[in-house]
Amino acid sequence: MPAFTSPPHPPYVAVIFSSIRTPQEGDGYETMAAELERLAAMQEGYLGFESARNEDGFGIAISYWRDEESAKTWKNVSEHMGAQKRGQEKWYASYHVHIANVTRAYQFARDDVS
Amino acid sequence: MPAFTSPPHPPYVAVIFSSIRTPQEGDGYETMAAELERLAAMQEGYLGFESARNEDGFGIAISYWRDEESAKTWKNVSEHMGAQKRGQEKWYASYHVHIANVTRAYQFARDDVS
Repeated sequence: MPAFTSPPHPPYVAVIFSSIRTPQEGDGYETMAAELERLAAMQEGYLGFESARNEDGFGIAISYWRDEESAKTWKNVSEHMGAQKRGQEKWYASYHVHIANVTRAYQFARDDVS
Repeated sequence: MPAFTSPPHPPYVAVIFSSIRTPQEGDGYETMAAELERLAAMQEGYLGFESARNEDGFGIAISYWRDEESAKTWKNVSEHMGAQKRGQEKWYASYHVHIANVTRAYQFARDDVS
């Protein structure tokens, strides 16, 4: 998975998912996360996905969408998979979700990075 | 630093900073990051800060602000410190910034987490 998304110019929608993982090995989380990302990428309005997680279990995942409608459709799809329900029961100690309209964006890249 | 922010109900502003760190030890990054966070917390309109970074160097940091004005003021403060300029030169291979208006938010916490 590439580190950065490449959304077009704003406006677009960001769904911010901050979470604390429960410390369980072999609970199927990685498989679920990869499948969710694969399904998201197939969905109308998908613009990209970024995620990072600290060793202590705190992580942030952001999916970018063309508009609120596609972001909501994705929420329904992921719920239909049962990911959110199972996640509440098994994978996460807690999570916060913020749905946001991106109004401005800019970026920087070093010239000398090979 | 607490893992989660506790912003009030939307609307509020999220500044999403996704970055790839350059692999340099002892470059003062941690000191700068801690100082920036300390200064942010003192600023009018500050609502919270969250961050996570993968071992491979990709990370996401999000600061939450009461409104666009306080988010912009913070940008000026951090630039005045020179953090952004030095960051471009030293700490980051690349970064993306998204400024977004949070319109909805919800959260979950397990009851059985001790």
